Amino acid sequence: MSYTSSAHSLFGVSIGFHEDHIPRVYSFSFSTSSLPSNGEFPGKGLYQTYNSSSNSKGCVGRIYSHADMDNDFSYEKVPTPILDTIESPMHLKNLSNKELKELIDDIRSELSFLSAKTQKSFKSSLAVVELTVAIHRVFHAPVDKILWDVGDQAYVHKILTGRRSLMETLQQRDGISGFTSRSESEFDPFGAGHGCNSISAGLGLAVARDIKGKRERVVAVISNRTTMAGQVYEAMGNAGYLDSNMVVILNDTRHTLLPKLEVESSKTPINALSSTLSKFQSSKSFRKFREVAKGLTKRFGKGTYEWAAKVDEFVRGMLGPIGSTLFEELGLYYIGPVDGNNIDDLLCVLHEVASLDSMGPVLIHVITKEEPPPPPPQFQDNQQTKVDEEADDEPFLLPLTQSYSDCFVDALILEAEKDKDIVVVHAGVEMETSLQRFQNKFPDRFFDMGLAEQHAVTFSAGLSCGGLKPFCIIPSACLQRAYDQVVHDIDRQRMAVRFVITSAGLVGADGPTHCGAFDIAFMSCLPNMIVMAPSNEDDLVNMVTTAAQVEDRPVCFRYPRGALVKDYLIPTNGGVPIEIGKGKILKEGKDIAFLAYGAMVQNCLKAQSLLYELGIEVTVADARFCKPLDISLIRQLCNTHSFLVTVEEGSVGGFGSHVAQFISLDGQLDGQTKWRPMVLPDTYIEHASPEEQLTIAGLSGHHIAATALNLLGRTREALLLMC
Amino acid sequence: MSYTSSAHSLFGVSIGFHEDHIPRVYSFSFSTSSLPSNGEFPGKGLYQTYNSSSNSKGCVGRIYSHADMDNDFSYEKVPTPILDTIESPMHLKNLSNKELKELIDDIRSELSFLSAKTQKSFKSSLAVVELTVAIHRVFHAPVDKILWDVGDQAYVHKILTGRRSLMETLQQRDGISGFTSRSESEFDPFGAGHGCNSISAGLGLAVARDIKGKRERVVAVISNRTTMAGQVYEAMGNAGYLDSNMVVILNDTRHTLLPKLEVESSKTPINALSSTLSKFQSSKSFRKFREVAKGLTKRFGKGTYEWAAKVDEFVRGMLGPIGSTLFEELGLYYIGPVDGNNIDDLLCVLHEVASLDSMGPVLIHVITKEEPPPPPPQFQDNQQTKVDEEADDEPFLLPLTQSYSDCFVDALILEAEKDKDIVVVHAGVEMETSLQRFQNKFPDRFFDMGLAEQHAVTFSAGLSCGGLKPFCIIPSACLQRAYDQVVHDIDRQRMAVRFVITSAGLVGADGPTHCGAFDIAFMSCLPNMIVMAPSNEDDLVNMVTTAAQVEDRPVCFRYPRGALVKDYLIPTNGGVPIEIGKGKILKEGKDIAFLAYGAMVQNCLKAQSLLYELGIEVTVADARFCKPLDISLIRQLCNTHSFLVTVEEGSVGGFGSHVAQFISLDGQLDGQTKWRPMVLPDTYIEHASPEEQLTIAGLSGHHIAATALNLLGRTREALLLMC
Repeated sequence: MSYTSSAHSLFGVSIGFHEDHIPRVYSFSFSTSSLPSNGEFPGKGLYQTYNSSSNSKGCVGRIYSHADMDNDFSYEKVPTPILDTIESPMHLKNLSNKELKELIDDIRSELSFLSAKTQKSFKSSLAVVELTVAIHRVFHAPVDKILWDVGDQAYVHKILTGRRSLMETLQQRDGISGFTSRSESEFDPFGAGHGCNSISAGLGLAVARDIKGKRERVVAVISNRTTMAGQVYEAMGNAGYLDSNMVVILNDTRHTLLPKLEVESSKTPINALSSTLSKFQSSKSFRKFREVAKGLTKRFGKGTYEWAAKVDEFVRGMLGPIGSTLFEELGLYYIGPVDGNNIDDLLCVLHEVASLDSMGPVLIHVITKEEPPPPPPQFQDNQQTKVDEEADDEPFLLPLTQSYSDCFVDALILEAEKDKDIVVVHAGVEMETSLQRFQNKFPDRFFDMGLAEQHAVTFSAGLSCGGLKPFCIIPSACLQRAYDQVVHDIDRQRMAVRFVITSAGLVGADGPTHCGAFDIAFMSCLPNMIVMAPSNEDDLVNMVTTAAQVEDRPVCFRYPRGALVKDYLIPTNGGVPIEIGKGKILKEGKDIAFLAYGAMVQNCLKAQSLLYELGIEVTVADARFCKPLDISLIRQLCNTHSFLVTVEEGSVGGFGSHVAQFISLDGQLDGQTKWRPMVLPDTYIEHASPEEQLTIAGLSGHHIAATALNLLGRTREALLLMC
Repeated sequence: MSYTSSAHSLFGVSIGFHEDHIPRVYSFSFSTSSLPSNGEFPGKGLYQTYNSSSNSKGCVGRIYSHADMDNDFSYEKVPTPILDTIESPMHLKNLSNKELKELIDDIRSELSFLSAKTQKSFKSSLAVVELTVAIHRVFHAPVDKILWDVGDQAYVHKILTGRRSLMETLQQRDGISGFTSRSESEFDPFGAGHGCNSISAGLGLAVARDIKGKRERVVAVISNRTTMAGQVYEAMGNAGYLDSNMVVILNDTRHTLLPKLEVESSKTPINALSSTLSKFQSSKSFRKFREVAKGLTKRFGKGTYEWAAKVDEFVRGMLGPIGSTLFEELGLYYIGPVDGNNIDDLLCVLHEVASLDSMGPVLIHVITKEEPPPPPPQFQDNQQTKVDEEADDEPFLLPLTQSYSDCFVDALILEAEKDKDIVVVHAGVEMETSLQRFQNKFPDRFFDMGLAEQHAVTFSAGLSCGGLKPFCIIPSACLQRAYDQVVHDIDRQRMAVRFVITSAGLVGADGPTHCGAFDIAFMSCLPNMIVMAPSNEDDLVNMVTTAAQVEDRPVCFRYPRGALVKDYLIPTNGGVPIEIGKGKILKEGKDIAFLAYGAMVQNCLKAQSLLYELGIEVTVADARFCKPLDISLIRQLCNTHSFLVTVEEGSVGGFGSHVAQFISLDGQLDGQTKWRPMVLPDTYIEHASPEEQLTIAGLSGHHIAATALNLLGRTREALLLMC
């Protein structure tokens, strides 16, 4: 094992790679037990953390690269003596205040080290080091339940709850998950992944606790990144109504809170005054004062109660920032804002809150600072290029597009230049960076809804009613959150909304939470929806044009994450519309016909090559459409082949099922043709590399070829192929 | 045509029926043009409306029945002279204030008449007569867009927009829809149905208008019944952010606003003061004062602006009721509360709002009174019986259960008595009345979430984590709104939550918006879910017991609306658990096997009887499980029959697709067996009676038998059967 190798600069950090420039996962893991207590590492002091103190703001670890060392260097991990003693949150209980602060420095150092090692950004977790330490210092996990609603804020939590030694395996095959996970640790009472579920789940835990007569505390941390999602409001309103004891901590990084409050939020005062205020709000005496005041005024009858409640609300509102009364209206007791990077303030407020026996749901508004190190130079260049393109009048002269997403955005920009009615609505966890080019070019025709997918879909319907041509871009897994709106507000009303389903199929490191397995099934069963998928960059561009021209019904198409099939220069005039319901034959063969949908066409072509080498000629057809099916193509394939194999990167119930339905009713299954479906397996495929996942799923070119060999009775060759 | 016939008492009204006691749809329709201007009708003055005035509160039309006339009477429709002159909202513009008030009386009279004629409750529309009249007086539909989010509040809107003559066909086959519908009228810019979509759609229309450079106004009416749905908050937050001009009217009937505010809401003062206040809030001068104040204070920098904004908020908050600041925080300008049954106040406020050119989104809080007439005696008796059962220790001695819903609740109560961990979470548009028995019996173990389906599902997951056994009861069409939560928070995490999917399949008069067509497809594709459906009352009870005992994974079962197969006495000890994945053969035959799922088993048995009369013996099997499939049963059917016909009341992609997937991979489709799927057609089936819908769908016993005859080549008999 060696940390000395060639280096890339990432997040301002020089980190080690092997000579082939491919980032490696080091099999070495430094478990807390095996580490020397002084944390010594070989090499010299290139690695250094920013020395944070409790008073410093935005104590994001900074690591300085050594300017004069280029591609070959050695580096040293700074000691983490306090962190090395923490194997469970229990070990936080006996630390002195000074040691707690040293622990915070240690964790920052650890995160920076991990960030360099794993090439991942840990900025969300860097922002919540103090908060996580304070929560685990005050509460008693795993008896007390700590829930997170965003995976990448929970890494400090993972480090403190016995998973430090596994952090380098984050999102690797057989490694730990990028999200909280019940199966991974008893300290994770609920799995995060899609955001915005922690209050609902926490409230369920709190109510179950009350019914069971237990006494553990429930703490749900929510992120300001998820507070535009409707479920958060449903949950807060219900928490206020049920009035179970639970603590909701709003981790506000001040990027976005509520859309409207974006600007004001950044003005929320965090200073000595707010520190005093939040301590005062959380104090028993103030709480008691409110209760007594309410109790007294209740006796004077309606009007007085009403007025007392209002006065109380305003007094508290004057203390809190804009936004605080919203939570109070929903029924949560608001405390804040608290400086989330001040461990003393956090401990004080959390101790007060934890010591109260019966106070219903409490919301602690914590403001933390995400100060990410600058992105790596290659990213900077890339982004700069993209921003510069804003002024570019010839987007088709762009550098070669690299990913499906890039290609899609280029095509969409071309269409939008031709047709001023085209508008974009985006929703979902994160926006693909390439979409920013559309936003920069057409800021007034671009609407990013974040996690408000339900609203995004119905809003698109409204835009369509108003005579515009909305493209509604949502990752497959997030589209699930707006399914009813797709059914009811789009399909049933035959709205011309164009759904662009991104991250379709397997998604590699993001694992099952972000996997787009079900969209073919849940979209194709809708009566009015045109459901299609491009098999390569040409058809992606063509489908953008096709979708733009469909004006009497909804249409959707899906594309996967990742790179295009080939280097590609987008046509100057954009795509050519495809005839609706028209597939095509790519390779003519006999005996076996592969009828593939979307990205799987490429895998079938790989299988075709493999089989060709074995002297077997098969047909490969690109279905293009799951709905409406190209029935003449399917009939033709059935009439001329013994086997029809449908292949898709989706669950059962989708493309293959629609083909089977048709050929059964058409009588095609009664004759010579035998149908075999290849779909994603009926299981959740854990995080791994895309290639590993495809192998697990059994949908690689080799798997498809082996399937054909088996159908032809050449089982031995099939086995050899898979070796 | 005659209005004289036998009579039933409905909503305190004696109304006319034919001798067979079946309510009839009279083919006569009184279009505004064909009506005599004095609205004369044959018969005597039994029919009389409550003479409302603009100052009267809760002006619900009351109709007095003639006590001494029993089953035979004649009645007269009171004149509606002003309403008779209104063929379009345009005709409201020239009415005097006095005539407007007379129009309001006319409409109440009309609604009461329609309520009697159609046996439907119009109370939601009765509450918004003044509001609807005011909206159409002030705004200019169809150029201005008026959106409603609840169908049954839009009947006055329908009457005023040219559909008066069609109101008697409401929810009848080929009649008008119970919801707003774009295809029905140009005055319906968007379809309501699932609630809570009107702000999202309205905002889309408003933004499209701005982009298109048009000037029409957008008015979205939302109901307090839908304000617990997350989409409403997503939409309001986004409306506040985008700041497009639109008017949101919150029609608050004070039943439920926000869960927490339920109590306080009823205290909202509606009096002379609030009338003055809302007028003041909506006035140009106050609006301008706010703008100027903000503009001034902005110049003094951050702190001052912050304080000025807060002071402004509090001043306005002091004027408004609790809840008002919530809307302000979300970015909507709050006006209210306005007495929604006072036409003068409404007109004043709406005129002010409509006259402002640029003010961003405005929320007008309107309080209306729903004072429904008492339910008909037979309903009262029924409900009384049910409430009385609260104290009943022997629920299995109840009167014969009548509907699937009744039977389910009885079975669940039995299980809940045996197992104190069983809790119920309900979500969806309306709660089935039978569930109230569970709520009455176990108030602490019952959680009604209304339209907050997303939260309900994740909350159930939390309850399960906390060691309880949640049954999560949601209608099929509403479960769509929580699909992502089902995938991510339940199935992926393998939570033992028991989904009870009500209103599965066709739902008669509620039409396509409430039809549960897709749940088999979208639930069966989930890897960990057990998906089952009872074919009769016995198995419904057994599946409740089965679901209660599954503790390691999620399970769902669906049942239809409507009556049980037979009179039924629930077993004293409740159900018997069914082996997971075990179907059963009900009738043994040859040649053709019907493998049916859920309620369609009964239709297959009907088909079997019909075929038996023709000398054809077929097999009928009850699959019970869509997931896991009973593969030995399916193999057995394939081995012994030429045709396997799968039958389900669901879309393609569901049960039949799962069977096809299995038999294809199992090689069963390669041999003698031919598979034929029968599913719901690939279209939305409009409102009609359940029997009519089943015929349209082609899933009646006759259709199934005819399918079998066709497969056997006996096409002539098939045709005869369908005549």
